[in-house]
Amino acid sequence: MAEIVLRPIGSLTTPFRTRADCPRNGWQLDPPPLCHAELLPEFRDGLRDIDGFSYLFLLYWLHEAPAPQLVFTPPFDASPRGVFATRAPGRPNPIGLAVVRFEGFAGEGRLAVRGLDCIDGTPLLDVKPYLATTDARPDAALGWLAPHAGRKHGEGHLG
Amino acid sequence: MAEIVLRPIGSLTTPFRTRADCPRNGWQLDPPPLCHAELLPEFRDGLRDIDGFSYLFLLYWLHEAPAPQLVFTPPFDASPRGVFATRAPGRPNPIGLAVVRFEGFAGEGRLAVRGLDCIDGTPLLDVKPYLATTDARPDAALGWLAPHAGRKHGEGHLG
Repeated sequence: MAEIVLRPIGSLTTPFRTRADCPRNGWQLDPPPLCHAELLPEFRDGLRDIDGFSYLFLLYWLHEAPAPQLVFTPPFDASPRGVFATRAPGRPNPIGLAVVRFEGFAGEGRLAVRGLDCIDGTPLLDVKPYLATTDARPDAALGWLAPHAGRKHGEGHLG
Repeated sequence: MAEIVLRPIGSLTTPFRTRADCPRNGWQLDPPPLCHAELLPEFRDGLRDIDGFSYLFLLYWLHEAPAPQLVFTPPFDASPRGVFATRAPGRPNPIGLAVVRFEGFAGEGRLAVRGLDCIDGTPLLDVKPYLATTDARPDAALGWLAPHAGRKHGEGHLG
């Protein structure tokens, strides 16, 4: 298989206009700002029964990602790191992933969410229910990121 | 933006040969079987520093997914559900997502993992570190899937 072709199913509205405005992750700001995921009309039937989930995974296309760098020194760190050990946007397939809190519908096909970290207008690729049974691993080790876990907005960007 | 083009960075080895062999999710089998994610040589430098993470997100291309159905009745359920409220493979952009336990390197560029649910030979798209601080939501509500959370292998497929 040489190539895989995707098509956006909608787009994301966030308060972040440029990459420099984006937080390091969607939960860095307190409280995380209200954002929206709006599906194109032809995909909205797929949202049936989503109401009961309190968290969702959103997958999105990091359309303004810089060229991929397999090894780079993050702005908040002193050592070069492998891109697959980071959430940085400049990766071979720049797909963004966020766990967002779902706060209900804000119009037809328009989901109100908190926890996004990406630029306003980012193309949406997929919505999946977050399942605590398979997806929550509160004891997961943070690896080289452990010393940075408490850092705030403006000091870099993990995703 | 009309089209987005991706390229596999490697492939996944699992004990599941057909879709019918796949568990409903990668944590359904106890214990979850050992699987591998092998990166192509040109992407292996990106794995630097991944050692310290105990869980990873893997994104993969569900290359044998059936045609997308926006609304369908899951095999283990009695009501039609919207595809974005499921982890089913037949979705507009069939990208699979799994939280896997990382059990170290099993060769150069070859990660030993547990928690995969997909067919042997599935193309790998991305590897991301799982961060308990942003990604673990143990209290997340399971929505319509709550009554099915305990079901076992062979009764259907969520992802």
